[in-house]
Amino acid sequence: MSPVTCQLSISLDGFVAGPDQSLDDPIGVGGMRLHQWALATASWREQHGYEGGERNADAEVAAEVMQGIGAFIMGRKMFGGGDGPWDESWKGWWGDDPPYHAPVFVLTHHPREPLEMEGGTTFRFVTDGIESALEQARAAAGDQDVSIAGGASAAQQYLAAGLLDELHLHIVPVVLGSGERLLEGVGDPTLEPVEVVASPAVTHVKYHVVHG
Amino acid sequence: MSPVTCQLSISLDGFVAGPDQSLDDPIGVGGMRLHQWALATASWREQHGYEGGERNADAEVAAEVMQGIGAFIMGRKMFGGGDGPWDESWKGWWGDDPPYHAPVFVLTHHPREPLEMEGGTTFRFVTDGIESALEQARAAAGDQDVSIAGGASAAQQYLAAGLLDELHLHIVPVVLGSGERLLEGVGDPTLEPVEVVASPAVTHVKYHVVHG
Repeated sequence: MSPVTCQLSISLDGFVAGPDQSLDDPIGVGGMRLHQWALATASWREQHGYEGGERNADAEVAAEVMQGIGAFIMGRKMFGGGDGPWDESWKGWWGDDPPYHAPVFVLTHHPREPLEMEGGTTFRFVTDGIESALEQARAAAGDQDVSIAGGASAAQQYLAAGLLDELHLHIVPVVLGSGERLLEGVGDPTLEPVEVVASPAVTHVKYHVVHG
Repeated sequence: MSPVTCQLSISLDGFVAGPDQSLDDPIGVGGMRLHQWALATASWREQHGYEGGERNADAEVAAEVMQGIGAFIMGRKMFGGGDGPWDESWKGWWGDDPPYHAPVFVLTHHPREPLEMEGGTTFRFVTDGIESALEQARAAAGDQDVSIAGGASAAQQYLAAGLLDELHLHIVPVVLGSGERLLEGVGDPTLEPVEVVASPAVTHVKYHVVHG
């Protein structure tokens, strides 16, 4: 079966988003500080249609984390558009050609028809829970990985349910002080650090989740 | 001036001690899981008068973190013996020959005469605050480092006051779920990862604290 992976940037004090998240500030006050390392890389810039950027250890990680993924799963809040029944004009934060280039299964309580974007990204809306979303994502991914794209709540749910196989954390040396924590309500998973890449900006640690 | 350093083992969710700390369980429920990596090493065992142990990357880190230190500072709770005026029969957790082999300045509200132990460790009790303790520790350390031995509160206070120069975290892949957090109430320090050592048990990251 496809491995289920998740890669997130996390502050040294454990937050994956800052406080006061809103439609104007989707990752909260200061939350962008967690992503500066990626935004500075040539890999991220290429993935998002920009030129330039650094070609360094961080760039290699930013390239690697988007490779070999056959399908994504994301939480409703990460897809955006607010709570409740869908405003069908909302098509995500990423414009006409999102950087996923694969099926993306969005966890939601509100049904919606699939949304086909440019570049191979199709958003599919799953209303019957995380296991169903994973089953559909695995079917779509074939022999490639399924990646939990975020946010914190989706990652927590898959980790707590014992369905996550790999957690790749980009530990950013900032202290946000408040916001949305990643490792809450996830039980006591057995994690093994299997790969560490260090850079002046961030420490990338890949953990295998050992299933009992 | 002597650099001021601090090295602590921290869970992946940010705790340096587990919940329900007590005299019987000084680092809280599950807190010992943060220290297994060190206890398994030959270096730690030698420092504490035991034989055997592993000679691996973790052992090199465990040796390094106790080198070049001319004086230590620790909080009252780390020294132990309960709250309030001193029970003079309490001489710390470490027996007659504590592993410090240097002056140790204990932050307390209650005066006490210096306590000379075997092996070069002398506990000195400082009642007039963290800056006074640091001044005395620097005088004692000469051109060697001053190390904030812990616990969380002492480390927080020095970091928040801009008095810490280096924070060496041993990031242990366990999720404690609750306990005593390190990086709370420390403001927004500028940290630069300058050295990373990876092992199967723990990820050691040394951060320089950049002073504005």
